[in-house]
Formats: sequence, structure tokens, C-alpha cells
Amino acid sequence: MKRLTGTNEKISNILYQEQLELSKENLDVEATVREIIEKVKEEGDEALRAYSEKFDHVVLSELHVSDQVVNEAFDKIDKDVLTALENAKANIESYHKQQLKGGFEDQPSQGVLRGQLIRPIERVGVYVPGGTAAYPSSVLMNVIPAKIAGVKEIIMITPPQEHFVPAILVAAKLAGVDKIYQVGGAQGIAALAYGTQTLPKVDKITGPGNIFVATAKKLVYGVVGIDMIAGPSEIGVIADSTANPVYVAADLLSQAEHDVHARAILVTNSAELADAVELEIEKQLQTLPRQAIARPSIENNGRIIIAQDVESMFELMNLVAPEHLEIAIDKAYDYLERVQNAGSIFLGHYTSEPIGDYYAGANHVLPTTATSRFSSALGVHDFVKRIQYTQYSKAAVNAAEKDITTLAYAEGLQAHARAIEVRNDKN
Amino acid sequence: MKRLTGTNEKISNILYQEQLELSKENLDVEATVREIIEKVKEEGDEALRAYSEKFDHVVLSELHVSDQVVNEAFDKIDKDVLTALENAKANIESYHKQQLKGGFEDQPSQGVLRGQLIRPIERVGVYVPGGTAAYPSSVLMNVIPAKIAGVKEIIMITPPQEHFVPAILVAAKLAGVDKIYQVGGAQGIAALAYGTQTLPKVDKITGPGNIFVATAKKLVYGVVGIDMIAGPSEIGVIADSTANPVYVAADLLSQAEHDVHARAILVTNSAELADAVELEIEKQLQTLPRQAIARPSIENNGRIIIAQDVESMFELMNLVAPEHLEIAIDKAYDYLERVQNAGSIFLGHYTSEPIGDYYAGANHVLPTTATSRFSSALGVHDFVKRIQYTQYSKAAVNAAEKDITTLAYAEGLQAHARAIEVRNDKN
Repeated sequence: MKRLTGTNEKISNILYQEQLELSKENLDVEATVREIIEKVKEEGDEALRAYSEKFDHVVLSELHVSDQVVNEAFDKIDKDVLTALENAKANIESYHKQQLKGGFEDQPSQGVLRGQLIRPIERVGVYVPGGTAAYPSSVLMNVIPAKIAGVKEIIMITPPQEHFVPAILVAAKLAGVDKIYQVGGAQGIAALAYGTQTLPKVDKITGPGNIFVATAKKLVYGVVGIDMIAGPSEIGVIADSTANPVYVAADLLSQAEHDVHARAILVTNSAELADAVELEIEKQLQTLPRQAIARPSIENNGRIIIAQDVESMFELMNLVAPEHLEIAIDKAYDYLERVQNAGSIFLGHYTSEPIGDYYAGANHVLPTTATSRFSSALGVHDFVKRIQYTQYSKAAVNAAEKDITTLAYAEGLQAHARAIEVRNDKN
Repeated sequence: MKRLTGTNEKISNILYQEQLELSKENLDVEATVREIIEKVKEEGDEALRAYSEKFDHVVLSELHVSDQVVNEAFDKIDKDVLTALENAKANIESYHKQQLKGGFEDQPSQGVLRGQLIRPIERVGVYVPGGTAAYPSSVLMNVIPAKIAGVKEIIMITPPQEHFVPAILVAAKLAGVDKIYQVGGAQGIAALAYGTQTLPKVDKITGPGNIFVATAKKLVYGVVGIDMIAGPSEIGVIADSTANPVYVAADLLSQAEHDVHARAILVTNSAELADAVELEIEKQLQTLPRQAIARPSIENNGRIIIAQDVESMFELMNLVAPEHLEIAIDKAYDYLERVQNAGSIFLGHYTSEPIGDYYAGANHVLPTTATSRFSSALGVHDFVKRIQYTQYSKAAVNAAEKDITTLAYAEGLQAHARAIEVRNDKN
């Protein structure tokens, strides 16, 4: 892992430059994706079939994945996996149900009523990658909050495959997906955004995908809502001398194994711990099945930052603004108030980050690439709209007339003023 | 106004095609804006000065607008405007304070703790257009929710002008802006996103602007957060035979006067009302100072839809998903539950939409172009992050080990499983 040393300011600058690199656009991909979207918009199902043949090498008869195929997945799935999915589902549900808030109404003065309604988005599309990147846990994390929000129809799409991973279909069913279609890539996103003869158009699209999927989501944003454009996975660990290097190394590797672009960052005020973690990482890498991914990730994007003190550890980690943040310090809960930027926090020596990936209930769809400075984990709030409402009586609008028309005239918007004035018999 | 008739399905299709037209991209502008952003990123203040000279025809000595200039605005401002701004501020504050919710914590089982923190975004930039589009009400609407959220520093930028509109600077001060800089356009957005020698970089940018500003916001999204890309103003009015055509016409015109691209849409089950509103619009247009804007807006984008019944009125308006929705029906409150998509609702015959633009307290920064299907009014929630946290004891992680590792192995992520296993003495 590369060590960053020096003043906090110097380290901050390095971290910031690295972040800027991560958020660069890819304009070549954009042109290709733009073309795919246009074709799907014009030709619908026909374009989907053509792209499936071209990119997935599959000649599709049916776009819809039948209930029978889904039911068969329940027969095929390993029983321990089924139990684990059911338990994870219960935890994710009980966590996310606490997010269901936000409506209010008040009567600030005579004849005036104001409020905020919470309404579910009507129809949501969830993208689920195919092949080895097909994660049933992601299906649960994307679908359950939508379901709790009250979304009327949840459509899942996934690239066509000879044999679907049973756990994916089972997770979809458990979480409450209404319909599944086999279409992937940018063409799948376009189909969800604009609809085709077979696929209904949705109001919002969530779910992870490769660069083509991510770019397509970015381009259809506005026509539909999207969750976020996720970058590679990140873990930041704040650890002091009380941390166990074996645990810290294992947790850093757990994110490094995702992707050669994944980032694992350790900030510590203990040089001894830093050394011990490095040794442990090498030791654990030796026997790791996904070493070919985890090693370049650690070597190229791994960072160890030696901070002067506890204060600096949090200051620097707040600049990293990591997707996942572990606080590997005794009495970690007491340090919660120092966290300004992070997607999801794991407190203490035993709360290994994968607990959150699969199980504890908080969402694992999280802001990456320092975007936790301004955005948050996927949740129920992402599947509802807050609709404002206001009601004024005749007396109330007449009483407010002077203030409102004064501002309207000051802004040069006379029709705004007149709309208030016509409601006063005196005018 | 153009009348749309026929079955609900036929009208739906027309509305949908019109919406698609509205959300088309402008790729030429994008290339220009991309260039401006790159130059500001590289050259900082120097580029800002060069673009100010080129686009605003102003040679800037100071980028920062001094406290003295702001204080002088308080001397210059009309006293009625000041009072109206203060009253509006109080209403906006009392409405938005009700949005401050969202933290929770639970202990679902022994040794397990989960929660959600609410943290303000650290630094926010607010764009305020110059010239005739300088609206003090927009300053209040953008800044007050950020202030209530607890944002530490609010930076306002606005194009350089020989004389600033006093109400803009006063509104900024009243609402709690910390610093003002005179720089506009795409270069201003780039400066907020990346920082320059003088301007600090922010975490999120909000506020309206022309196509260059909007495109720049779109392009820097990811490096910073943005509020939304607002399209032209829209008003939808649902009215039955109990509505007053004078009021309805005045309200439709109040949005039409914003912009030749503004959209005013009336859905009614009363052909008589439709006729009366059309006559009234023509009558009121005759004496409207901004007739040159309102007339083409009404003629090109105005729509009257005659619906069969109350059911259809709401069904069709939910497809329009208007930014502002008036329900001009007796006992309008009872119809609230039928609204699926709208930014802000105005209930009954006396709640003229401009009440919301200026005064009642609900936000006037609203989703346009049918995006209220999936997005919401600006509010306190846009200036906070929800940060998740989880804590497991040793016993708790050991107890969950089987489920978690089963899922990790099923997904082929062995390092995830190992991070859990190393915490169990039995392994």
C-alpha cells in the first residue's frame, strides 16, 4: 500500500487530486451509449433483441422471465442461502421501516394551512448485472426500500443468461419484484426509460452496472430519476493501537477483492499498527482466491496515512469521505460525532464491513468517490416524493396581499401581483 | 390555447410526446460549457476575470462583494420590500423547520445497534442570476433550507453588475449567506465546483440559471452535488364549474409571464369554464405589461384539456406532473389524496399560485418537465446527508456468521467471508 505522509494539508491535496481523477468522464462511451438509447427509443423490442444478439450473444424468444422460471429457482436454490436471504431481508426491512417519515401539516395562522405529503414513486426499474457480478444481496438492498416506500410496480431487468443464478430470482421474489425481463446493458436502461412494446416505462431506475449501464443512466436522467452513479467500492478504516491488525487487514481486503479499481484506505495514528496491517495483508493475500483482483487493488489504490493524532485521523478521513467507514477504536460509538462524511459507518473491532454488505439491515448501496460529502445511502426516501401543499382562505390572501404584491412588483412580475389582486373585492 | 380532446389514452400520448421534446439535450452548449469548466479548473481566478470581460463586459477588480456593499443595500432598499422579505423569511423558516427529521437508532437484538445520523452538508454554493432574472424570493428559497439544515458556510455567486439590485443583497443577508462573489455563468459554476485562488470549492450547488448555468451544473455533478436542472415554469390548474374564470386566467398568466417557454395547462370537466377562461385570458393579456412574453407562452404552450369527469381530470394531470398544481374546486382539500405527481399544490379558489412563489413558506424551487414523478421540492433534506451506522458485538457477529458467510460464498466473495471468520475464535 502506498503511504501518504506529511502535513494534513499536503495529504489533503493529494487525496483531492486522486478524487478528481476518479470522477473523470468517459466521452467515448457516452457517444456509443447515446446511439444505443436512440435506437431503443425508436425501435423498441426489435432493438433490444438485436443488441442482445450483438452483446450477449443470445437470441431471445421471450423478454419476460416467466413465473415458472422464478418458481423453479426456489427448488434449485441451496437451502442455507435461502435462509440467509430470508434473515437478511427481515433485517433490511426492520432498518428501512424507520425511514418512513416526513409528512406534516400546520396552521400557522387563521385561514392558512400548509403541509407535506409523502407519495411513493409509481413504477421503479431495478437493474441487476449478469454473470459473476450478479449479487442477490444487491437485489434485496434495491428492492426492499422501494417496497416499503409503497412503490406500486417494481420491474427488474437483468442480462439474458442460459441459466439464471437461482439466488437472484429468489431474492427478487422475496423482496417483492413484480416483473422480470431479460435485457441488459445500455439498451436495458433505455427500455426502462422510454418503454418498448413489451417493457413498461418506469419513473426511476436504480441498481449497479458496468460503465455502459452507468453512462446510460446518466443520459436518461431527467426523463426518469436515477439513484446514483456508483464508482468502485471503497473502504476507509480509522484505527488506533487498540485495533487488531488481522481484522483490519481482512476488512481492507474484503473491499479490495471487489474490483481492481476498489480503494482501501487506512488512517492510523499508530505506525506499529500500520506495519502490522501491511504484513497481515500480504499474508492473507497469499491464500485469497481472488488475489488476482485484490492484489492490484491494494497495490495501486491502497493508501496508508499516518496521522498525528485522533483529531487528524477524523479530519483526513472526512476528506476521503469513504463509502464504508470502519472505526476500529475502543468505545468507537463515542467517536460517531466526529464523522462528517461517510456512506455507512461500522463501529468497533467486531463490526466487520461485510456485516453491512449482507446482513445488518442498513443499505449497501452507498455514495462513492467522495460523494458522501453531499449524498446518502439508498433508502426509502429515494422511492418517495415529498409534495407540498398550501391553502389560503379569502381573508388570508387579502391580508397577505400587500407583502406578496410588493415582492411581485419588485421582481417585475405584474401578472403575479394581479393574480393576488383579483381575489380582493376592494381592487 | 391549444385544446386537447379525445380519449384519456390519446391525450396521454400527446402529453408524453410533448414532455419528451422538453427534455431533449443541447449538445452544442455542452461542448462550449465543457471548455469553460476546463479553463476555470486550470487557471482559476484568471479565467473568471477573462470570462467576465468576455460575457459580462465587466473588468473585475474584486471578485468578493464586500460587506460594505451589502450594508449599503439595506439603506437603498424600499422599506415595503424589506418588510415583505422579512415576513416571507419567517414563513419559509417555519415551514421548513418541520422537515428537520430523520435520525433514529434501534437495538434489534442483543449486541446489535443500528442507526441513521443526519449531518449537514459542509459548504453550499447558491447561484443567483443577474439582470431582470434576479429574484430575491429565490435567494430566500435556496438559502433558508440550507441554513436550517445547519450548513456551515453558504457562498452566493451572481454575475457582476454595475449596480446590484438591493433586494438581492438584502435577501442574502436576511437568509444567512456567508459570502458573496460576483461571477456568473458556467465559469461561476466551475469556480464553485473546483475552487479558485479566491473562491472556495463547495460540496453542493443550488439555484436557477440560464442554459449555460444549467449545463455546467449537469457537467460538474459528481464532483459536487446539485439541486436539479430546472426547466421552464409550469402551472397546471384542475378546475370544475365552481371555479372563477377570472382567477383561473390570472393564475395561468402568472406563470406564462415568466418565459415564452413556460407552460400553462388547464384541465377541466366544464366546457363552459374552458370558454370563459379563454376569453378572460385574452382580456387580461391586453393590459399585461409582460404581454410580449405571456402571449407566445399561452399561444404555443398553453393547453386546455376537457376531461370527462373528476376521475379523468386527476388522471390526466398526474401524467402532466406539473411543477405547480392548483385545485380550483370547492372543498379542494378532499381531493388531495388523488394527487400522485406535482411539485407544490395550491388548494381552493383563493390559493393563487404566487402565494407560494413568495410567501406561504413552502419552497418555490420545484421539479419541472414531469420530473415530479420522481423528485421533490427543494428542502432541508437537500442540504443534509443521512449517514448509516451499525455496531455488532463479538457474540453478535459470531452468531450471524453462518448467514453472512453463506451469502458471501454464494456471491464468490471469499475475502468478505474471511473478514467475518477471523473474528470467531473457533475458526
